[in-house]
Amino acid sequence: MTKKFVRYRAEADTSFGILDGETIHQIEGGLFGAHAPTGEKHRLSEVKLLYPCTPGKILAVGLNYRSHLGERKAPEHPEMFYKPISALQNPGDPIATPRESINMHFEGELVVVVGQGNSVFGVTCGNDVSERDWQNGPSKDLQWWRAKGSDTFAPLGPAVVTGLDHGNLMLETRLNGKTVQKQSTSDLLFDAATVIKRISAWVTLEPGDLIYTGTPGSTSKLNPGDVVEVEIEGIGVLKNPVV
Amino acid sequence: MTKKFVRYRAEADTSFGILDGETIHQIEGGLFGAHAPTGEKHRLSEVKLLYPCTPGKILAVGLNYRSHLGERKAPEHPEMFYKPISALQNPGDPIATPRESINMHFEGELVVVVGQGNSVFGVTCGNDVSERDWQNGPSKDLQWWRAKGSDTFAPLGPAVVTGLDHGNLMLETRLNGKTVQKQSTSDLLFDAATVIKRISAWVTLEPGDLIYTGTPGSTSKLNPGDVVEVEIEGIGVLKNPVV
Repeated sequence: MTKKFVRYRAEADTSFGILDGETIHQIEGGLFGAHAPTGEKHRLSEVKLLYPCTPGKILAVGLNYRSHLGERKAPEHPEMFYKPISALQNPGDPIATPRESINMHFEGELVVVVGQGNSVFGVTCGNDVSERDWQNGPSKDLQWWRAKGSDTFAPLGPAVVTGLDHGNLMLETRLNGKTVQKQSTSDLLFDAATVIKRISAWVTLEPGDLIYTGTPGSTSKLNPGDVVEVEIEGIGVLKNPVV
Repeated sequence: MTKKFVRYRAEADTSFGILDGETIHQIEGGLFGAHAPTGEKHRLSEVKLLYPCTPGKILAVGLNYRSHLGERKAPEHPEMFYKPISALQNPGDPIATPRESINMHFEGELVVVVGQGNSVFGVTCGNDVSERDWQNGPSKDLQWWRAKGSDTFAPLGPAVVTGLDHGNLMLETRLNGKTVQKQSTSDLLFDAATVIKRISAWVTLEPGDLIYTGTPGSTSKLNPGDVVEVEIEGIGVLKNPVV
């Protein structure tokens, strides 16, 4: 059975809850508690959804779908990088074009929420927003710190879903309503378990840590006024305007 | 007037305190509280010192001393990268050679603790431990995630010192007692304020975030049994064995 966990603000309070249809059942503690209901309920339309978990760190995989490789060779093992937690953005809130940015792209992705003992707690939708000019272009930095880590470059949500077979979900990204990426997570070169095994051989993963698992196909430039949606089967739609 | 903040474990409790000579005066809250003394005191020799702050994220600067550039051109602006918080290590605790590592180096550095409003709260000693084979060698990864981010690759401490003129402090690294790096922080290509300005143009800094400011001169391979010390004038000695 799947469960959908959300984090939300209702009036001044921030809480976690379980989403059932259009109703949120508030729970005590966070994602890793007992999930005991407090009895308080909210209608989804009456709260502000926040990014659904608060990780200690965020990792991401580069080049993890054959369709995204282009002329590049498939990597021999998952190629990781970090995104800072300051880059997280809520569902519905804007992706802000950073100063000096000239080529900011979307990257629709399945995101893994790590559980106890290097397990997969659940999955959600993410957008690994990337500035190509700083990543690999004329203004390339030594490392991808701002190419992948500028503020609002890590939209996440709307819900963390547990109990889902995340190895075979259709991922679709839409730009202004038009489908621009569509691929099953079964096409990942390295699946979640393989990526977690790779990371944890060197870097300890804690419950709540996030892994953006990579983007399929092609990406393109985001412009102010655009709307990006990342939809994953069984999870929902992560929608963000661009400003 | 300078103050030295430490984080420590005494019996089962973890606390913050102000170090005065050999005495720790426990304070309420953390580094960013009112620093009100609880009245409890400990002798330095009777506690376990921990890395002195618990950041949300860690950034570091590459190529920030002319003496470390070798044949490389000086960068036009601070070149940043991330280290994960899971890499932090306590004073006195070991730097662990990661699996498959063949060329792990020390990098003695001044570390800035960010305060409110992009200020410098204080400074401490750090070791930006680096695996050169994964960073730039035959086993080079796409990004420096394990080269700079493996567990124990971010020793920090012993104390965060406030009120110090951190722009002109002698930094000295010793390997098994022999001086291997010695340079003043006045030789930083980009000083703390410039680095903070660069980062915060794209990535929001929060109080407690850390910035490893770069290493001077040459570095060399660490082997099990070695002892590395990073000493900075007015701060103290960060000493870690290698296993």
